[in-house]
Amino acid sequence: MEKVTIKKLAEELNLSASTISRALQDSYQIGSKTKRRVLELAAELNYVPNYHASGLRKKVSKTIAVVIPEVADSFFAQAINGIEAVAQESGFHVLIYLTHESCTKEQAILKDFQNGRVDGVLLSITAETAQYNYIQELISRGIPLVLFDRVCEEIATAKIITNDFESSYQATQHLISCGCRRIALLSASNSLAISKNRLAGYKQALIDLDIDFKEDFELACSKQDEVNYQLIKELLTRPDRTDGIVATVEKQATIIYQVCRELNLQIPQHLKVVSFSNLQTAAYLNPALTTVTQPAFDMGKAAATSLFKALKGKNVSLISESQVLPSVLHIRESTCFH
Amino acid sequence: MEKVTIKKLAEELNLSASTISRALQDSYQIGSKTKRRVLELAAELNYVPNYHASGLRKKVSKTIAVVIPEVADSFFAQAINGIEAVAQESGFHVLIYLTHESCTKEQAILKDFQNGRVDGVLLSITAETAQYNYIQELISRGIPLVLFDRVCEEIATAKIITNDFESSYQATQHLISCGCRRIALLSASNSLAISKNRLAGYKQALIDLDIDFKEDFELACSKQDEVNYQLIKELLTRPDRTDGIVATVEKQATIIYQVCRELNLQIPQHLKVVSFSNLQTAAYLNPALTTVTQPAFDMGKAAATSLFKALKGKNVSLISESQVLPSVLHIRESTCFH
Repeated sequence: MEKVTIKKLAEELNLSASTISRALQDSYQIGSKTKRRVLELAAELNYVPNYHASGLRKKVSKTIAVVIPEVADSFFAQAINGIEAVAQESGFHVLIYLTHESCTKEQAILKDFQNGRVDGVLLSITAETAQYNYIQELISRGIPLVLFDRVCEEIATAKIITNDFESSYQATQHLISCGCRRIALLSASNSLAISKNRLAGYKQALIDLDIDFKEDFELACSKQDEVNYQLIKELLTRPDRTDGIVATVEKQATIIYQVCRELNLQIPQHLKVVSFSNLQTAAYLNPALTTVTQPAFDMGKAAATSLFKALKGKNVSLISESQVLPSVLHIRESTCFH
Repeated sequence: MEKVTIKKLAEELNLSASTISRALQDSYQIGSKTKRRVLELAAELNYVPNYHASGLRKKVSKTIAVVIPEVADSFFAQAINGIEAVAQESGFHVLIYLTHESCTKEQAILKDFQNGRVDGVLLSITAETAQYNYIQELISRGIPLVLFDRVCEEIATAKIITNDFESSYQATQHLISCGCRRIALLSASNSLAISKNRLAGYKQALIDLDIDFKEDFELACSKQDEVNYQLIKELLTRPDRTDGIVATVEKQATIIYQVCRELNLQIPQHLKVVSFSNLQTAAYLNPALTTVTQPAFDMGKAAATSLFKALKGKNVSLISESQVLPSVLHIRESTCFH
């Protein structure tokens, strides 16, 4: 497909190239109406700026931003370490922004980046994020952006993910092989691609192994732990009590342990648990927790590496930088009798 | 004591007030030699800028920075949530910078703040940090800074800490009451005030309860987990093997559990463990971990609240904003037989 240039945009809109360029830089010299026309077309034609050129702009902050839902999660803590390892080599600062799963906050943060506060962005979207125009707009303004872990198909850029479908399939298959027949899945959201993939893997495993899927065994969790506590308690007290849980969010596992203790349910005798988790303490929990462990550090490294390729102006198309890194199922006591 | 003003600095140095003001703003119009003279005197006389005035400067970033050693620690993760809760109300962005315990990195980050990238700073210093001129310099340039958890006496500003001496005394006393006689303390560093206070509390408890203190039972840990793994292994294999450990850093506890498993040592039968920790999973570890739990969320809130008082230009002396919030000892299986 033909490369979209500023010249091309200028022709399409019948404006001068310099007007297009200044509009993309959000220059005060360009009216907001014109700016909107330019940004909309740039987004529509998926205009990818020449980062080498934009790298030559006087204002280089030597800073990249990492925008994530939270830090109280081992995956993100370890991913950040991978990102910092790469940024350090290039002498860049790393700023961490937390969205706390608020789409409004994510939008405000990305808007703020348009003023050149940072040179590039690594983003893992919130559980609420359902429309992406502000992400596309940032890219259109010449700020390279790489998505990791929680990505959205709609944005044409590098996406660094793990094999969520397969991991979830494998986790569910493992629970079935341990004798579970009423298996529940705890999701992070209904909208996230990552959640959809993990749900799909879970459903496929049930189908392939002739276990019937119960709609009400698939729960989208809230950002409030108290709400999740109630959801899980309900799941473990109803007549057709679940006998196996695939938790797709680390902190859900702690709540499951808490509820089981309160209800005097034994893990793994009464309930088997596998959780997506990078907890250092997983092997030392009571009982030791079976986990799907994501390559968090390597995912952070890969995401940062792609971003710096773009920042260093090598003529990279970020789309071709996407990677899928495999997760590993660690079987421990929470799914097996001793 | 007389309030140090720009006028006072001008008189002392026999320069114009505007020169002093521009020097403090790092104006290109002022020579580096003059700047140094001004900053040195400002530091010496502990000049505290009028934040209301500096708040009126055109360039307000509506951003505060949180500079901490790492995020893979529940204390900092929870403190950040407390900070964000306060920042949110004031409509400020929060940037998180990680020093990874590198004093050089901390210095580079704080230097970077001098260009007005942020309006205020919350800092928890690295285990290496031993001189503080770059912290004083930042304050002298009119950027309010509040220290939390890992503070340094030398800087005259708000310090939000917990009762480290008492907590450590209490933890050691508890181990002694459980029958421990060869008690080791794992520190974060030799230089940090927080480490010195925790060491002092430990020593005082030993003295008060007539247990002799062994120099080589007090270990300053490294930032490398592998090194700490070796230190702990050595501690648990020597002839006069320790029978109780006070870990002052959360991640040390996980390593202790790992080493004990490898050496087939039972906790608490062979070794009793208490750790400063905010781990959500502490109660679900095998065995459940006795912790000194810091009021992390409240410490973050208190630090941010002081900072915003200064940012909002209320004529506050940050020094008078210092607070000591108490930690709580949670006794669990790792120090008691069932």
